[in-house]
This record gives sequence, C-alpha cells and structure tokens, in this order.
Amino acid sequence: MPRSKELAQANLENLYRIFTIPEAPDSTLGRIDQAISDNLAGFLQEHIVALERDMSEIEGDFSDSRVPEEPTFVSDYTAFLKETLVAQSVHTASPSFIGHMTSAIPYFMLPLSRIMIALNQNLVKVETSKAFTPMERQVLAMLHRLVYDREDRFYERFIHDSNHALGAFCSGGTVANITALWTARNRLCAPSGEFRGIAREGLAGALRHLDCSGLAILVSRRGHYSLGKAADLLGIGRDNLIRVETDEHNRIDLRRLREYSRRLADEGILPLALVGIAGTTETGNVDPLEALADFAGELGCHFHVDAAWGGPTLFSRTHRGLLRGIERADSVTLDAHKQLYVPMGAGMVVFKDPAALSAIEHHAAYIIRRGSRDLGSHTLEGSRPGMAMLVHAGLAIIGRKGYELLMDQGIERARRFAAMIEAHPDFELVTAPELNILTYRYNPAWLQAALAEAPQERVSRINALLDQITETVQKVQRAAGRSFVSRTRLAPARYGGDSITVFRAVLANPLTTDAILASVLDEQLFLAGQGETIQLVRKLAALAPPQ
Amino acid sequence: MPRSKELAQANLENLYRIFTIPEAPDSTLGRIDQAISDNLAGFLQEHIVALERDMSEIEGDFSDSRVPEEPTFVSDYTAFLKETLVAQSVHTASPSFIGHMTSAIPYFMLPLSRIMIALNQNLVKVETSKAFTPMERQVLAMLHRLVYDREDRFYERFIHDSNHALGAFCSGGTVANITALWTARNRLCAPSGEFRGIAREGLAGALRHLDCSGLAILVSRRGHYSLGKAADLLGIGRDNLIRVETDEHNRIDLRRLREYSRRLADEGILPLALVGIAGTTETGNVDPLEALADFAGELGCHFHVDAAWGGPTLFSRTHRGLLRGIERADSVTLDAHKQLYVPMGAGMVVFKDPAALSAIEHHAAYIIRRGSRDLGSHTLEGSRPGMAMLVHAGLAIIGRKGYELLMDQGIERARRFAAMIEAHPDFELVTAPELNILTYRYNPAWLQAALAEAPQERVSRINALLDQITETVQKVQRAAGRSFVSRTRLAPARYGGDSITVFRAVLANPLTTDAILASVLDEQLFLAGQGETIQLVRKLAALAPPQ
Repeated sequence: MPRSKELAQANLENLYRIFTIPEAPDSTLGRIDQAISDNLAGFLQEHIVALERDMSEIEGDFSDSRVPEEPTFVSDYTAFLKETLVAQSVHTASPSFIGHMTSAIPYFMLPLSRIMIALNQNLVKVETSKAFTPMERQVLAMLHRLVYDREDRFYERFIHDSNHALGAFCSGGTVANITALWTARNRLCAPSGEFRGIAREGLAGALRHLDCSGLAILVSRRGHYSLGKAADLLGIGRDNLIRVETDEHNRIDLRRLREYSRRLADEGILPLALVGIAGTTETGNVDPLEALADFAGELGCHFHVDAAWGGPTLFSRTHRGLLRGIERADSVTLDAHKQLYVPMGAGMVVFKDPAALSAIEHHAAYIIRRGSRDLGSHTLEGSRPGMAMLVHAGLAIIGRKGYELLMDQGIERARRFAAMIEAHPDFELVTAPELNILTYRYNPAWLQAALAEAPQERVSRINALLDQITETVQKVQRAAGRSFVSRTRLAPARYGGDSITVFRAVLANPLTTDAILASVLDEQLFLAGQGETIQLVRKLAALAPPQ
Repeated sequence: MPRSKELAQANLENLYRIFTIPEAPDSTLGRIDQAISDNLAGFLQEHIVALERDMSEIEGDFSDSRVPEEPTFVSDYTAFLKETLVAQSVHTASPSFIGHMTSAIPYFMLPLSRIMIALNQNLVKVETSKAFTPMERQVLAMLHRLVYDREDRFYERFIHDSNHALGAFCSGGTVANITALWTARNRLCAPSGEFRGIAREGLAGALRHLDCSGLAILVSRRGHYSLGKAADLLGIGRDNLIRVETDEHNRIDLRRLREYSRRLADEGILPLALVGIAGTTETGNVDPLEALADFAGELGCHFHVDAAWGGPTLFSRTHRGLLRGIERADSVTLDAHKQLYVPMGAGMVVFKDPAALSAIEHHAAYIIRRGSRDLGSHTLEGSRPGMAMLVHAGLAIIGRKGYELLMDQGIERARRFAAMIEAHPDFELVTAPELNILTYRYNPAWLQAALAEAPQERVSRINALLDQITETVQKVQRAAGRSFVSRTRLAPARYGGDSITVFRAVLANPLTTDAILASVLDEQLFLAGQGETIQLVRKLAALAPPQ
C-alpha cells in the first residue's frame, strides 16, 4: 500500500480534519463517488474485473497482519482499494449472474444509504435514533399487515405501543429465524408456579418443569441451515432438529411428519416449533402452509414460517395464493435484502401476537429501561443501524404494485427459462420453478435416453460422472466471469434416491433478459465440451454409448 | 406522503428504469446527496431540527400500516423523508452530544460506504464476496495482533487458513459476545466418548455428560446487558449469570468473585466463562485483567474480555498498560462502530486459539461447504454486508499513530472535563475517568456540605430528590437539542449503598472542545434553576438548609 510519510505526518497532526473536511472532489475517492452516482451499472462493469484470479493470489494482497503505523492518504488508499478489492469483488448486480439471491438494487438505494450512514443512528434506543424508532415500527407494521392483514384497529392499537411489538428488525434472516425460535422456546417454557421461566432458570430446569427429555424443531430437509445454528445456540441440539423428507416437489412430506411427531412423543420429546418454508433456498418451493398450520395446532406448538425468500410474493395478487396459510403462522421471517431489493443487512421477523416478543424482553439501567420506547428491549442484536429506512423507501417508492410487478415478472422469467431448458435436448430440468428458482443440469440427449432404461447401479455411476461435469462447468463458468449460476445437491425421486449435483438459477434480477438466459445455457454447453469435462463425457459414452 | 399518480404509473410501467437510471442530479435526492458530499457537518447542522418534538407527534408521521398501493416519485419521497425522518433524527456527530458512544465519523467513511453498498457483496461465502473474504480475514488478523501480538509466523500460518479462524466479524458487540460464549459453551461441552457434543445433543445431555447441575457465567455488575441475553439464548439462564459486586472503581471485586465461585462449586454448577470488562459501558473502567486471567486459569474456564469500548486503547503506548492481561483472554470483543470510528454495524470477536471457532462450525449443501473458504461456516449471522472494508479503511488511513492520538486525546479530554467538574462548586464527580467516560451530577455546594454530615436516612432522602433533578435536567437538556449527556444509575461507596442517578459523559468525539464542555455544565446549571427543578431544590433546602 503506498504511503507518503511526510504528508501523512501533516495529516496526523491535524487529525481532526478527517472528521470535518472532505478532500477536493477531484481526488481518487471523489471521482469514484461521482462515477457511482452518475452511472452505477457502468462503474461496476468498468471496475470489477471479469476474469477470476486465483484466490491464493488475491489473499496475497491482504496478507499483512500489522496495522499500518503511519496514516495513509485517502487517495492512495482508494487507489489501492480500487485495484485490489473492487476489481476482485463479485458483480452481484449483473443480470447474467443468476446464481445467488443478491440482485441489482434500485438506484435510489445508494443516495438514501448515504443519508442513513451520514445520520449514523443507533436503533437500540430512542436517544440515539428518535424518529427512526417509529419509522422502523411502521415498517414492521407494514410487513405484519402484508402477512396477517389484521383490521385497522389492530394496527392503530399496536403500531407504536411500546409494551408490544409486531416484530423485530434484524441484520438478516438467520437472526430473524433465531429470534423466532428463541421466542417460541421461551414461551413454551414460560414462568409458571414455582418455575421462574427458562430465561432465568435455563434449559435444564425448563425440561424438568415440563417433564420432558428434550425439545425438538420440525422442518423439511429443505430447511435453511440457520435452523441448525438455532438448534445449537438455543441448547436444543442439532439432533433434535428433525429434518423431514420432502415430496417430489421439495415440500415437506406430511405423512413422514406425522411419523416423526409420534416418535418424538414416544421418546418424551416436546415439539417446540414446526417450521414451514415459503420459498426454499435451493429450489424455491413452498410448503403446504395450511396443512402445517393445522398440524401445529394439533401438536400445540409454535408455527414458524421462513419466508426469507418467498415473503414478498404476497405482494402479487396472482401468486399470493401459493402462500395460503402463512397468516396462521405464529411468526414469519422476511429478508428485505432479498426480494425487497434493499442492500445487504436487512431482515425481519413478524409475530402474530404482539405480546410474543415479551418472552425475550430485557432491560438495563442506562438503556432500554422498562417502559421506554427503546427497540433494543426485544432484539437479539444491540446497537443496530437504521436499515429500516431503506425498506421504508422501497415500500414507498416501488409501492405494492411495483413489487407485484417484480414478483410476477420474476416468476414468469423463471417459467420461460424452465421452458427453454426443457426444450433444449442437452439439458435436464431437475426442479421446475414454483416461485422464481429452478435447478437443472447438463445432460445430453443420448445420455437422457440411456438413463431412462439403465439399471439403478448404472444410473448411479452415470450420475456420479454428471456430478463432476456439473461441478466443473459451474466453477469454470464462474471463473470466466461472464455469467454465474450456483450449484447444490438434491435427491429427485426419478433417480431412486441418488443425490445429484445441479445448477441453481435464481431469477430475481429485473434486468435479466431471455437473451441473457439463452447465453448462459450456450456457455454451459460450450464448457461441457471443453477441458477436463471431455474426459468425463468420454467415460459417460463408455457407460451409455450414444445411439 | 405526496403521490403523482399518472407519472407514477409511467414509472411502474418502466420498472426496470429504477434499477438503472438515476434521476437528474438536481432532484431533491441528488441535491441532498451532493450536500452531504460537500459538507456533512453543515448538512447535519442544517437539516436536523434541534428542538425535540414530542415522540407521539413524531409517531403520527409513521402511523400508516399499509404498504402504499402506487409507486411514489423518488423526489417526493425524499422531500417527505427530509422533513420527517431526517429533521427528527439525533445529531450523533455533534461535538456537544457527549452522552452516547456514537461519535462523528471521518469524512472518507461516507464515500467508501457508497462503494461498499454499490458492490453489495454478501460475506457469507466466497461466491458472493471474493476479495472481501481475505480482506475481512486480514482485518480480523490485524485486531488479533493488536490484542495478542503473536509472532509473524503465526499470522502467516493462520491469516488465510480456511480450516482456522482468528475471529468472527459481526453486526455488533452483542453478537460478538454471544459468539464468544457460544463457542466457550460448545468447547466445554465438546464431543467425548459416547457424548456427541452439545451442538448435537443439546444442553441437557451436556449437563448429564459433565455431571453438573448447570453452567454459569461470571462477570461484574458493570457487565453489558448482552451477557444476560447470551445466558438466556444459550439456555444457561439469567440466574446463572453471576453479577459480582465491584470495588469503588467499578472493577470486579476479586474477593467476592472467589466467594461466588466457591458457592457455585458447592451447588455443582460449572463455571463456563469468566468475563472481564475493558471499558465498562457506564463508567469506562477496566477490570484487573491479569488477576482475572489467573483466576480463570484456576477455575479452568474460558476467559472472555468484553473490550467493545476499550479495545482500541491498545493503540496507545501511553495507556495500553491499563489493559494488561487482555492477551491472556481466550476471546475478546471489539466494536469498530465505537472507537474505530466506523459507521454503525461493525463488531468483532477474536480468539486466541485459531481452532476455537470450529466448536460452532456448520455447513450446508449449497453454501459454506466443508473445506471451502466461506466465512459463513463460523459466524452466528448468515448473509452479511462488507462492513469490514470500512474497518480496513480506518486502520489504513488513520493508522496506528492516528488511533493512538484519538485514544490519548479522548482520555486527556475526559481528565480535563473531570477537573472542570471537580473545580466547580455545584457539581459532583461521581466516577473519575479511567478511559474517556465519567459520571457526575448536579449537587450544589451547600448540599454537598450537608450530605457529608447527614445521617444515612437523610442522605437517602437527599439522593432521591437529587435523582429527580438529574433525570429532569437530562431530559430537558436533551429536548432543547443544544447538547446531550446520558444518564445511568450507580451505587458509589460514599453513600452507603444508595443507588443514585448520574449524568454520563463519553468523550470520544475529537471535535469536542473544552469550551463545549464548559457550556454543557453551564446549561445544566441553568436548567437546575428552571421549571420543576426549582420545587425540588426547595425541598432539598428544607432537608439540608444552605449554611
């Protein structure tokens, strides 16, 4: 990193200057700032280098473990940053990067973010956030209403009632899911009689009080990995996160769910929560939420819906029916940095019962005092930025109709891509899109024919080779930097239980056109005939000769 | 909120435009953006209204629980935002706001934040963060080195070793503390023999395995409230967070600590962690970390240091000795959005043992796969923004010497303010600054004389009345909007165990001058002679007549 010692010394002596006086606007940082303001897409296109450098090489740029002794000029630092960090970051906004859940963000999010950061509020308490507190409560009320659609009077009563909370704002869906299950656990193990509640006595005492040998969380195998973290963190144990098999549409198998529940009852394990998924991370499917709500009622346990991805589908009059039953959930997770198109770091959990969050309420002498309006009394996190402002902006500027259009277009785009894959002789659609996520793989026509007739043992050997092709193509495509799809492993019914590696496409970027989608397939087809995959295709041909 | 339906309709039809084309730069949002770039301090001064509006009135601006049906123009929305949210936010950067831990931020943080948000990386995995992954690991290594100062070879070995981690980046100190205690819990209850570990079997199984009746966390009464949250969340129970009394300098009482530990042993409760504080939130004091390290060794338990506030004092050659012993901690929490002068949302926990975080490691099929470099495999949070970039920038641009100056100046400023208070006949310094935090209260000279001679019963009555004055003055001062100190409750030895309400000043803003500090006292003195406090002073005079 370049240093200009003498001038830096001057900077040191006038340290307070960096807190007040910006550099001249034609400085390196000023120019970048302007370029982003003028044309974000152009900036990203120009400065992010497409071709992937080897990770160990990039690590070389970030290998000094000493804090630099002397100050550095902002422009020198910015030049370093541009060449190393910015150049080697991921173009998450690119319309041909359809592999992850991070999409382009509306242009107004950038200048609004600057306002948010300039104000540097801390939402843990009113004294450091003032109007940001009711603003965040309003955002939570809006999302609560989107999910639960209660009457006006309900919202008038609770929106700003500091003794109640319609939800909690979080840094993301993981903290939202943990908050939901923490609340569920503490409500199940609430104070009663001599028992002062799990929050005070701990889990062991709670189990004794409830006279059970453990608590369990039930979810399908498509459940997000944050649920495993929650089971660990909350002291429940990952073995008690029961991952129920799914049907051919990646939805929880209700028959198996009943079986597991019976087994738990036999073992004296109490179901703490049943979790439904509205948009699984890997395939975008939606669990049968009505049926799950019924079953949670039977079990008498908390019903949580992880709608981190699929929640905003509720904006669409056409598709919101897919989530029917979500309004019966006790809590629902939503991620604003996914389909509300807000920058990274904005999740939420809303609760049907505005008193639910009191189960995790806490206070202190100098902050979040009893009776105060401080939001920090019922959040897992402490100090938090005013990200809710960006959600507020999105909801106001884009509006329900705007989000509806984004949701509808995404689902239509996914369906067109699925049709493209199905029409292509050399690709296999593995999971059709229910929302806007689908999975597929390269599987040449001659091999598809052979697979259909091969005995299971040969099917498995073919799949193992195809897995290697999928993985290689995905990595090489990512490294080439023109386009990106992600990959995961699924066990579709058609292959007798074999887990296979698949490409995963998330069609959330409104700038992704059909032409781009066609070129993603073209590139994959090209890559399947290149380099090491040729050897793999030859091995496949030996197993199942082209007809 | 204003709407222009017809034009908004056009916006709706061209939804993709908001993802690409910024408005003309002379739009409302463009002008604000420019104003912040040109002169942040001026913008905040001009747009944040000083005089506090009643909270219920502000709530009225954020009381619609419906998501607007139609889109809104960005400029209309921004105008609304400016008048409601921005105007009624808190001027956290103001040099006369010395009540909270949020200070002014260096100007370069704003344009760099824009780069960070424009890139919109997700640090949960390399595929959505690339160079941000080694950059964050470098930041963690730098902070690790600041605390532990291991040899070059150690850092060369571990800085980018994906099977190890020098720490975890978090949204804040609360998540950092939880992560530390979660790790400590899982290491204490690690797999052994038939026991598959607490992460899999849960807490009840772990207690059976360890043959103990519970786990406990030991910390002084000045411990941050996040430790209570951690005790609840981790299933340990708040009753098992043992809050040890402090000495007259708000440092943990080692004799009492030994007593509690013996009592725990008698009850069959295992100490999970001993927590030392380097800069208590309320008074800025530092626990005797050497002695705590020794005692944690005796107990054989995890030693965690919460240095969320005081950690950066290590940059100061003059004052780093105050934290002696921190290098013996198993884990240390640091908050970058406090004394590293980074915007809200950046905390860290570093671990002495680079293998420690494997106790909370987790994987999934589509992300954070085993053997990958993905940072998400050992963080509590999932998707996370690239905030580490701003810490990286601060460390590089300000440098060690720059931070040293900031720390030294803060401590000197606090000492000068303490001297000012002590020299003033009508104020009482309650806790002197060890770092840059102090507490005091209005206590007129005649009353101080009376208090010194009064029997305890009268002392308590006087203190109760003084508490009301302190609380009133603090609230009225905040509402007037010229300056701000916070308040808390402490029980200094001098009043026989009485808890009293005190003003709390945090001297971290480099722009706070002695003149400003003098004017804060002047205003408080003025307010103590105004409105309802006059009645309280009269009551005091009746109890302890002026001589």
